[in-house]
Amino acid sequence: MIVGIIGLGLIGGSMAIDLKRRGYADKILGVESEPVNAAAALKMELADEIVSLRDCVERSDLVVIAIPVGSAVKMLPEILDIISEEGNGRKIVIDTCSTKSQIVRVVHYHPMRGRFVATHPMAGTEYSGPWAAMPNLFDGRACIFANSEESDPQALKTVEDLYNVLNMRPIYMNADNHDVHTAYVSHISHVTSFALALTVLDKEQDEKHIFDLASGGFSSTVRLAKSSSDMWVPILTQNRDNVLRVIDTYLEKMNEFRDAIAGYDEERIEKLIAEANRIKKIIR
Amino acid sequence: MIVGIIGLGLIGGSMAIDLKRRGYADKILGVESEPVNAAAALKMELADEIVSLRDCVERSDLVVIAIPVGSAVKMLPEILDIISEEGNGRKIVIDTCSTKSQIVRVVHYHPMRGRFVATHPMAGTEYSGPWAAMPNLFDGRACIFANSEESDPQALKTVEDLYNVLNMRPIYMNADNHDVHTAYVSHISHVTSFALALTVLDKEQDEKHIFDLASGGFSSTVRLAKSSSDMWVPILTQNRDNVLRVIDTYLEKMNEFRDAIAGYDEERIEKLIAEANRIKKIIR
Repeated sequence: MIVGIIGLGLIGGSMAIDLKRRGYADKILGVESEPVNAAAALKMELADEIVSLRDCVERSDLVVIAIPVGSAVKMLPEILDIISEEGNGRKIVIDTCSTKSQIVRVVHYHPMRGRFVATHPMAGTEYSGPWAAMPNLFDGRACIFANSEESDPQALKTVEDLYNVLNMRPIYMNADNHDVHTAYVSHISHVTSFALALTVLDKEQDEKHIFDLASGGFSSTVRLAKSSSDMWVPILTQNRDNVLRVIDTYLEKMNEFRDAIAGYDEERIEKLIAEANRIKKIIR
Repeated sequence: MIVGIIGLGLIGGSMAIDLKRRGYADKILGVESEPVNAAAALKMELADEIVSLRDCVERSDLVVIAIPVGSAVKMLPEILDIISEEGNGRKIVIDTCSTKSQIVRVVHYHPMRGRFVATHPMAGTEYSGPWAAMPNLFDGRACIFANSEESDPQALKTVEDLYNVLNMRPIYMNADNHDVHTAYVSHISHVTSFALALTVLDKEQDEKHIFDLASGGFSSTVRLAKSSSDMWVPILTQNRDNVLRVIDTYLEKMNEFRDAIAGYDEERIEKLIAEANRIKKIIR
């Protein structure tokens, strides 16, 4: 199978590594608009060739869109248009984006909709670019299939096989539900990390102090603040309504803490912490 | 040297392990008020004996107070009183608490103040109890010495040696400054984690969804929400004013994000994320 990967960054590059060495892909064709990233991806052997978008779609059996969701939403209809052309009708295209409602909506009435499988492999790190790609990134994690009933069964089966090779657990979900849930368990924690980094950088002018005093706890809480704006600006705007609802609940909780601390209300603080501790049972 | 450790939890227990196996302590005497923890600490060989507070002080050369700061503030004067008694004048006592202003204030005029060295080894995990103790916990981390000029030089030197055995980097700081800086780089990230856990638990009623969808990012951001209220209630109330100031700055930053997302202001979101990304240069 020839696999085309558009965007050889953390997700696309890591897929390339495991799909190739685990035998799912015989050949990887990469599309990469940044010349430096393209050169690096070749040198790191993430792709066998760097090609144009049209070449990639025409020569691949399966195309992975692994670019920020704003650009993916624009590119997907173009790719389905190429798949409409004679002789291309068995090709499959998938995306890996972190928000799903808009991308399934934009091709809902496309005649080749069945050839598209909307997925969200829930794995990653705070780093980006081909140099962030790594083997085994997806092993054991969950992969969401959004609105999978809108995909052709053969296309869906091929993509299920792909994620099986990546050792991911498939979860099937409506795209709108996906966006609600990810607002809670992923998007909000990026916003809180960004805000934490801004707070510390604003107040703690002496970087040496931050370095000296940062415990492991601070480092892990602020880790996501290293995430790139290329990826996160479109996620936060595309999932605006859900993210705002979560931020508002979050601000309520922060204010409850603030008031309890301000009033030296030890009993109330203890109760809030005990409630928060319930997360122990869920997240190991 | 006989080392007494009051509180054989994460910090006290981990110190016991490394001080013993690295040859600083010939014997460890433990004080542990919870019977289950005392039995576990003995079984795990964190201490050679469990003794009473008075026995511990009288038989040890150096006493480590490793209990929540609220209790430590009450216990320290009692220990210095015992050290005042005839024949005890060369004994040393240290604390390991996360806030320093109040504990140095409470013994400022004590006649045996010089025998006390106020320290804050900046290491830990989100777990507590003797079962959380582990070797090498302190290696390579920073240890704050607060108001070290108020300690006798010989006592200070002995404690510097102790932290050198634990492979910690000493940093000398005024207690009030310590409490300002730790509010920024430690206390706030606990509050934001607690609030994040409360938000998700509040909104995401289906725990299976949280488990399925939680990416590594969410897990690391919410990790500190597992921390115990025994430890954090007194920290947050003792350091109330500093913590409130940081929370208020943090709420401003969260609201900036909220407004930018609400207004679909991509340029503003991008600018905020780019600013937050500066943390990359400081925290690896």
